[in-house]
Amino acid sequence: MLSWRRVTFATSSGQQGNYDAPMTATTNITNHQVRLAQRPVGNPTRDNWSFTAEPVAEPPAGGVLVKTLSLSLDPAMRGWMNDAKSYIAPVAINEVMRAGGIGKVIASHNPKFAVGDLVSAALGVQEYAAFTEEEIKRSGMFRIDPRLGTIAQWLNVLGMPGMTGYFGLLDVGHPKPGDTVVVSGAAGAVGQTVGQLAKIKGCRVVGIAGGRAKCDWVVNELGFDACIDYKAGSVKAGLKEHCPKGVDVYFDNVGGEILDDVLARLARGARIVICGAISQYNNTTAVQGPKNYLSLLVNRASMQGMVVFDYTDRFPVAVAELAGYLKDGRMKSREDIVQGLETFPDALMKLFTGENFGKLVLQVAAD
Amino acid sequence: MLSWRRVTFATSSGQQGNYDAPMTATTNITNHQVRLAQRPVGNPTRDNWSFTAEPVAEPPAGGVLVKTLSLSLDPAMRGWMNDAKSYIAPVAINEVMRAGGIGKVIASHNPKFAVGDLVSAALGVQEYAAFTEEEIKRSGMFRIDPRLGTIAQWLNVLGMPGMTGYFGLLDVGHPKPGDTVVVSGAAGAVGQTVGQLAKIKGCRVVGIAGGRAKCDWVVNELGFDACIDYKAGSVKAGLKEHCPKGVDVYFDNVGGEILDDVLARLARGARIVICGAISQYNNTTAVQGPKNYLSLLVNRASMQGMVVFDYTDRFPVAVAELAGYLKDGRMKSREDIVQGLETFPDALMKLFTGENFGKLVLQVAAD
Repeated sequence: MLSWRRVTFATSSGQQGNYDAPMTATTNITNHQVRLAQRPVGNPTRDNWSFTAEPVAEPPAGGVLVKTLSLSLDPAMRGWMNDAKSYIAPVAINEVMRAGGIGKVIASHNPKFAVGDLVSAALGVQEYAAFTEEEIKRSGMFRIDPRLGTIAQWLNVLGMPGMTGYFGLLDVGHPKPGDTVVVSGAAGAVGQTVGQLAKIKGCRVVGIAGGRAKCDWVVNELGFDACIDYKAGSVKAGLKEHCPKGVDVYFDNVGGEILDDVLARLARGARIVICGAISQYNNTTAVQGPKNYLSLLVNRASMQGMVVFDYTDRFPVAVAELAGYLKDGRMKSREDIVQGLETFPDALMKLFTGENFGKLVLQVAAD
Repeated sequence: MLSWRRVTFATSSGQQGNYDAPMTATTNITNHQVRLAQRPVGNPTRDNWSFTAEPVAEPPAGGVLVKTLSLSLDPAMRGWMNDAKSYIAPVAINEVMRAGGIGKVIASHNPKFAVGDLVSAALGVQEYAAFTEEEIKRSGMFRIDPRLGTIAQWLNVLGMPGMTGYFGLLDVGHPKPGDTVVVSGAAGAVGQTVGQLAKIKGCRVVGIAGGRAKCDWVVNELGFDACIDYKAGSVKAGLKEHCPKGVDVYFDNVGGEILDDVLARLARGARIVICGAISQYNNTTAVQGPKNYLSLLVNRASMQGMVVFDYTDRFPVAVAELAGYLKDGRMKSREDIVQGLETFPDALMKLFTGENFGKLVLQVAAD
C-alpha cells in the first residue's frame, strides 16, 4: 500500500513548485537529489537543475535501498534532458536526473542482494535510491565484483562506456587484424576502451583527442600508434599522415567536422560506428549532417548506429574479457573523479568543453 | 602497329583545339561523337560539350567495330564529368563522353563476336566504337539475347539500372517479407526495378516520385502500395501516412531533404541503401549532409553505399531472374526514348529536371 506525500522543490533561480510522490515508510536518513527543473536550450546551466531533499523511503518487500557511491557522467545525459523521441524516454521535468552508478546495499528485502553488496544500477543523481522488486529488474541491477576493478573502473572499462566500446567496435565495426581503426574522443571513457581493444585485436589505431596531454597519454600509456590533436591543427592533414591506406573502421563519438574529415579518408569497405555526436548535443540549431556522406557510396562503406542496451545479455562475457586485460596489464584505464553531489551541474559541463581527462566520475560517497 | 593522327575539335562556343589519337586503318564511315569540352559548374550546358566527326577506324586484330544503337543516360554521368576522385576515373577533357549502350557488331576480328551480334558495352556517346581485344575485356562487353527483352529493356531492367536495383536491394537492403520498403526516384530506371522486386519479395512498397502521372503509374501499373508526390506536398506527412510502422529499407537515389525525411521515420534496425543523390549532383555548394543521421543511432540503423560494378560476376543470375519476371508479367518496364546523338546535351538534363518518365534512353540508330 502506497500513500502519497507532497514534495516541494526549488530551482536555483528561486522558483518553487511541488508534486505528489508515492511514499512508503521513511527512514531518518535525508536524501539529497538533483532534479531536472527545466529543459536546456543549448548548454545546460544551473537554472536547469533543482536541488531537493527528502526522507529516504524504506525499501518495500522484495526491494532494496542503495547508497550511492559513484555516478557515471556521460555525454548521453545531454540527450536525456531533451523532450525528444530517442532510444530512451526523456527525463521528466522535476524527476531526479537519470544516472548510472555504483552503490552499496544498505537495506534489503530481496534474497538476491545482501546488505554490503556493491551493485551497479540506474541510481539517479541522488544520495540514496530505493528500488522495488520490479525496479530492480527494470534497472538491470547487478552485483559487481570489486576484485575485477575499482569502483571507478566499474563505471569505465567494466561499465557502460566499456560495454559500448566493446560491442560497438567488435559487433558493428568488425575490425580485422591490420585494419586502420580511428577513434574520436580517444582519451574519453569509450575511446580508451575502443583504442586499446583494437590494438589487442591486431589493428593500427589512430586516436583523435583535444590537447597534447591527452594525445601523449593515449600514445605513450595506452599504446595507440598515433593521435591527432584536433585543437592544434587540421584533422584532415593528420588523417592523411597517419592513415596512408585510408580508414577501415571509424568509431565516432563526436560527429561534426571530424566525422566529415574521416568520411573523406575512408578505405574501400569501411565501417563507421555511430556511437555519439558530442559536438552536436548542445546545438541550438540543427545537427550538422555529414556533407561527405557520399563517400559511403564511392567506398562501398557503411555507417551504423549502436545503443549499448541492446547487448545487456552479453555484458558478462565482455566484462570477463576486459577485466582479464586490466589484470594482465594489456589494458589501462583513467578516470577523472570529481567529488560531491552538488558539483553535478558544473561537472557535467566538463564533458562538453573537453576538460575531463578520462572517464568522468562523480564520487558521492567514499563508502 | 599504331600510328597517330591529329584530331581537331571545336566547342559549341567556337573554341578549337586538337590532340593526337592512335590510328589504325580507317573505313569510309564517319563517326559523329560528343566529347566533354569543359567541366560544368552546376548544371551542364551546351558549352560543356563539343561535337566532332572522324573516320571510323578498322578494328585491330582481336578487336571489333560496333555500331551504336541505343545509349543509357544516367544520373551518374554528371559525376563522371567532375574532376574528382570517385569509384571511376573522371572523363578527360576532350574525351568522348562515357556511356553504356547496346550496339551491333559490324566488323569483327574476334572469334567471340560475330557480325550482327547485339552487344552491351561502354560505347561512349558516339555512332561507332572500335575495340581492341584488351578493350573488349575491360569494357565488360557481352552479347545480349534479344528474346529476353527489347534493346531499351536491356538498358533498363536487364541493364545497369536493373542490376543496381537488384543487388542494392537484395545484397545491401536485405528486405524481409512484410518489411516496408521506400524507394525514391520510384518511376526512374533503378526505382521501378527496386519497387517491383521488393513487391515480388513480399514487402510493402512506398515510392517517392515527382508528379501525379509518375505516382499513378507506379501504383496502378507497377503495383506499389503507395506513392508520395514530392512536388505536391510534404514527403514527411506522406511517410507518416504510408509507413505507420516506420521504414525498414530505404533505397535512396536522391539524397537531400527527402533522405532527411526518411531518416526521421526509420524503423528499428532499418537499412538505407545509398545508391545516388541526384538532388545534389549539380550543386555549386557543398552536398547537403543528412542532418537527421543520428536517427541511425537511435534506431540501430545502417546506411551503406553500393556501386553496381562490384557485382558483375553475378549479373547473369540477376538478368535471368529479372527476365523471368518480365516474361511472366510480374515486372513491367517503362523507357523514355529520345532520338539522335545531337540531342544528348538536352536529353541528359531531363534527368535532373525530372522530365523523363521511365528509364532515359538515347536512340542513336534504329538498327
